[in-house]
Amino acid sequence: MTTRQRATPNAARRRETSRRAILTAAFDLLQEVGYAKVSIEGIATRAGVGKQTIYRWWPSKGAVIFDAFLMLSEGSDGEAPVLPDTGDLEADLTAVLRATIEELNDPRYDQPMRALATEIAHDPELAAAYAERLDGPLKEAKRRRLRSAQQAGQLAEDLDLDVAVELIWGPVLNRWLQRTGPLTTQYVDSVVTTALNGLRPRPTDGTPTRG
Amino acid sequence: MTTRQRATPNAARRRETSRRAILTAAFDLLQEVGYAKVSIEGIATRAGVGKQTIYRWWPSKGAVIFDAFLMLSEGSDGEAPVLPDTGDLEADLTAVLRATIEELNDPRYDQPMRALATEIAHDPELAAAYAERLDGPLKEAKRRRLRSAQQAGQLAEDLDLDVAVELIWGPVLNRWLQRTGPLTTQYVDSVVTTALNGLRPRPTDGTPTRG
Repeated sequence: MTTRQRATPNAARRRETSRRAILTAAFDLLQEVGYAKVSIEGIATRAGVGKQTIYRWWPSKGAVIFDAFLMLSEGSDGEAPVLPDTGDLEADLTAVLRATIEELNDPRYDQPMRALATEIAHDPELAAAYAERLDGPLKEAKRRRLRSAQQAGQLAEDLDLDVAVELIWGPVLNRWLQRTGPLTTQYVDSVVTTALNGLRPRPTDGTPTRG
Repeated sequence: MTTRQRATPNAARRRETSRRAILTAAFDLLQEVGYAKVSIEGIATRAGVGKQTIYRWWPSKGAVIFDAFLMLSEGSDGEAPVLPDTGDLEADLTAVLRATIEELNDPRYDQPMRALATEIAHDPELAAAYAERLDGPLKEAKRRRLRSAQQAGQLAEDLDLDVAVELIWGPVLNRWLQRTGPLTTQYVDSVVTTALNGLRPRPTDGTPTRG
């Protein structure tokens, strides 16, 4: 039917198509029935593949669901996440957080991410796996962007970058998960500005803050 | 047996004893079996009272559990929460947050609060009730402490106090609930200092920040 030379790329393409169908099915089911009720059978049926196909590539339901979130966070190319770096830290952070709340406000993502977040809240092992495989690369991208600003003299020299990352993202994620207020652009813009400037009065009367 | 004059205070005392037994039972059960499995029957049995006693005072299981958390957050006197105000904002916030993580790190509180937090994550109505009855008074106490500092010129004049509150407590609560790191005194001290000073370099070379 096809030559041997063409068979291999076709098989790879079919595998990739199946892989994406499985991950999309896992994500859709998470949204519809919640983490606890998602099963490998359910994912297989929804994706139109055999259970064995899934078990060949993933050891467990948790592993499939992680890869579904990984696909979401990495985009289509599987590359590590990178934050924009235009040199204007405030603008870059604002853009990133506005995109984040657009996702958090989207019902297609809200339910699955809420499901994952509450599983993590009750399951230290899942939390550790999440921290390593999903949150880790994202956090590193955030730290990298802040480090670049720090090296440019835009952030305090002695700033703890982990605390800085949590100071920007923590309020937004906590407001979302605990439903303590609406996630508006005005809110995230204010979080970014307040985190950068601090709560204390900032003396701006003739004192240059940048060299 | 007793005179009429003495009967009333005794009855009131008995009612208060029953009320506390019920709320303590509700809290203990929450810790042991999780929110979903707590029942009015279970609470009544544990507290040594009849189911009717509970239904006379509370319309639902959710209402009992709220009052159990209220009792926890208010202490024994039922008064509104107040944050310490020694005039030194950084020291006061550090003391409050250290007490908060002591509670969050205590297994007796961790499980019930995690149960409530994840119910809130999935239930907008419960979230609204929580915001009004439990989180509301606490948040107001936090805002009041910040307002006092703002009036003393220790915080920026144009500071949004809601954002400020979330900038201090959001990272800590998110780290706890999502298990993204240990809740150490070093961490909360750093959150307070970084939130107050901001991420940007703070010009301290001879520029007084307070009048």
